[in-house]
Amino acid sequence: MDNKKISLAVIKRLPRYYRYLGDLLDNDIQRISSVELSKRMNITASQIRQDFNNFGCFGIQGYGYNVESLYKEIQTILGLDVNHKLIVIGVGNLGSAILNYKSFKNRGFEIIGAFDNSEEIIGKTIADKEVQDIKNLSQFLDKNKVDIAVLTIPSDACDKIIDILSVNGVRGVWNFSNSEIEVPSYMMQESVRLSDSLMTLSYRINEEEILKKYPRG
Amino acid sequence: MDNKKISLAVIKRLPRYYRYLGDLLDNDIQRISSVELSKRMNITASQIRQDFNNFGCFGIQGYGYNVESLYKEIQTILGLDVNHKLIVIGVGNLGSAILNYKSFKNRGFEIIGAFDNSEEIIGKTIADKEVQDIKNLSQFLDKNKVDIAVLTIPSDACDKIIDILSVNGVRGVWNFSNSEIEVPSYMMQESVRLSDSLMTLSYRINEEEILKKYPRG
Repeated sequence: MDNKKISLAVIKRLPRYYRYLGDLLDNDIQRISSVELSKRMNITASQIRQDFNNFGCFGIQGYGYNVESLYKEIQTILGLDVNHKLIVIGVGNLGSAILNYKSFKNRGFEIIGAFDNSEEIIGKTIADKEVQDIKNLSQFLDKNKVDIAVLTIPSDACDKIIDILSVNGVRGVWNFSNSEIEVPSYMMQESVRLSDSLMTLSYRINEEEILKKYPRG
Repeated sequence: MDNKKISLAVIKRLPRYYRYLGDLLDNDIQRISSVELSKRMNITASQIRQDFNNFGCFGIQGYGYNVESLYKEIQTILGLDVNHKLIVIGVGNLGSAILNYKSFKNRGFEIIGAFDNSEEIIGKTIADKEVQDIKNLSQFLDKNKVDIAVLTIPSDACDKIIDILSVNGVRGVWNFSNSEIEVPSYMMQESVRLSDSLMTLSYRINEEEILKKYPRG
């Protein structure tokens, strides 16, 4: 397996495979063919076979894939077999929603701290976490190893926070702010752009009208 | 322009262009070359030129693109020059965050109603909207034209809601639930998968370790 290469395009598809395979496991389905999976996921069977071949999972003719081993393989590739420690910075509505989101923990993402700068929010308990003063962030990071910081703060407040996170060894930033933020090269940033998703939906419900103006193939 | 075709891959990139061009306008930048835009956006200049050529926007040698006309063109293609009426179904933390999100309105997305089934939430006022009983949804849709429903409810509660939405002419569903939901073919669904984004981040911060096991090119 040492000579196999996995492209980033395949990596980007893995979370979706992981979700579908997890659903199959929950429903006690032990094996599945690429054709069946293709129908459920709306991807071609040959694409599925190619993707799985990349990391050495070959289906068996007349049997298909073993769901559990495929699931575990993808789990390892995505680094989900490792426990990750998270903190949430900014405990407004969105931060609270993330603190309350239960399915993260099942995937090895454990939230160990929550921070805000508002007097009204500091000291509150949300999903069993007491919200701490953002002033204590450095001190907290000094005592606790944190892998990922979830930022639900305005983008102009991000720079100062990124400085503190980076000197304290936080590797990942999950960014919910409106703008792209700058992080040092040894940090990874993944952004959730709610507006982009809503704009794509807008296109799709207006597609018919729009295509009269700009036909596409 | 009638014979130009725009592929879905281009459409998917438009929200990001739109965001960047909007930032340029906010900063009073009136024109930009594909090379400058390429540096800011981390896409190749030739990709940018190709994308814009698709809808008939050609840069001028030595001048570049007129930011405002490009911005307005993309706005039209995305259907953002049309005002959209939205309702939010499920007013937990995430629903509240969406009700409070200010930048939607600037892009023509107006939230005109909020619904929940919990006695504790019905009647509360959030971002100037009084949360209504979900039982009144049909009646509300009967009186108000709604384009998009934002679903922040558990996936097993979606089917019943989709039925009500679809018979009342709601065209778009912005789905925040964990599973893919089924919608009739005349409705469009756009899903926000927070877990997928977090899993991709997990891969990226663990990439070095993972690549020792599965090298990629």
